[in-house]
Amino acid sequence: MADGPLSGCEELPDRRAAVAELGAELRALADLVTRTEVPAGVLRESARRLRELAPAVRERTRDVAEVASVDDLMGRVRMFNPVIGPGNPIAPPVAIESGENGAEGWCTLGAAYEGPPMYGHGGVSAMLLDQVLGHAAAAAGHPGVTTDLTVRYRRPVPLDVPLRVWGRMTEASGRQVSVVGGITTADKPDVQLVEAQARFYRLRPDQVGRLFGHLSSPGAASPDVAHD
Amino acid sequence: MADGPLSGCEELPDRRAAVAELGAELRALADLVTRTEVPAGVLRESARRLRELAPAVRERTRDVAEVASVDDLMGRVRMFNPVIGPGNPIAPPVAIESGENGAEGWCTLGAAYEGPPMYGHGGVSAMLLDQVLGHAAAAAGHPGVTTDLTVRYRRPVPLDVPLRVWGRMTEASGRQVSVVGGITTADKPDVQLVEAQARFYRLRPDQVGRLFGHLSSPGAASPDVAHD
Repeated sequence: MADGPLSGCEELPDRRAAVAELGAELRALADLVTRTEVPAGVLRESARRLRELAPAVRERTRDVAEVASVDDLMGRVRMFNPVIGPGNPIAPPVAIESGENGAEGWCTLGAAYEGPPMYGHGGVSAMLLDQVLGHAAAAAGHPGVTTDLTVRYRRPVPLDVPLRVWGRMTEASGRQVSVVGGITTADKPDVQLVEAQARFYRLRPDQVGRLFGHLSSPGAASPDVAHD
Repeated sequence: MADGPLSGCEELPDRRAAVAELGAELRALADLVTRTEVPAGVLRESARRLRELAPAVRERTRDVAEVASVDDLMGRVRMFNPVIGPGNPIAPPVAIESGENGAEGWCTLGAAYEGPPMYGHGGVSAMLLDQVLGHAAAAAGHPGVTTDLTVRYRRPVPLDVPLRVWGRMTEASGRQVSVVGGITTADKPDVQLVEAQARFYRLRPDQVGRLFGHLSSPGAASPDVAHD
């Protein structure tokens, strides 16, 4: 099973598509296993088949200090980001659009993200907001790392309903960038379910170098820092 | 494959064990797919095998308004909680111990939780803290729902290193409960990587009823509310 006709002549877009396809299947399965009521025997048989599948995927792995071959840090491609990465089974994933007016993300949370019965976990909301607010800072020309994040829970976040996560920069002063944002349902963008504010610290090139230096060319500033 | 010898005579502990086993396999696979560098053909073949596996798991699913049969809300069992649930593929999962002095959780974040290269995602830290701080409030006798959470990022959180997430109640006044906490590595519990404070709103029994009423007996107060 290891070698298809593409081995040895793979192109990056093809590899990214395969990574995203596998990520999507694992997300679908995560959604299923958190909803299923099939007999324990079926669950165990599924676990057994997953164990069988693992060795082929384990044959070649990167060290955590190596960049994934499908990623491009300077080009802002992070296929395995846990919020937006199409290759990450734990990402909803949020599809983000950003521009001069800030960033907007879209996703639907399934049963795997449940906190109180029928509603999204508060920590998941915080995770989505951290990501989107970072994009808003970067979109405004001030990429950086989060220094603090405050989240206010106004109303429960429904599961299985299209959501909108937004962020907008309010102030940039020296190296500090302030951003506000929130979560609404897609069809009621004026009713804030969760509100957030965050501050980002704009990195100097040498700090970016220290953060990414072991992975890529030191000193090269990357707007992607704010997306992490 | 659907029916093993246990069908029809399954016991709850057996079913919970099977749920946890499947959750663990999917977590292992999520870790693998975020590190693998095998050819695209292997990724696609894995995706195909996952698609084959799904129909058996999909044969009987609950509606999001029904409690999972392995859960016990009043008994604080939430097998699919996205932070601590052993049955949830997206949970690290955090193992929490709580007592009079607060709550402590233990986990290791793999590549699936990566934000900046080699470090944990800031939103993931917020998610872990939201959960553990809720346990700390409940452990102090004040279960409630989070009203706000503030997270301060002091130092990056390493991947593949045992972490400690802690929380401790500082004040309870009326219906408002204040909790502080943080994340450290397991072997340097005095060096705070991330700090947090949160406020929880202690629910009245009728509010618990509104939250859980469609799922269980209305009016029954559950300390588990704070765990969500």
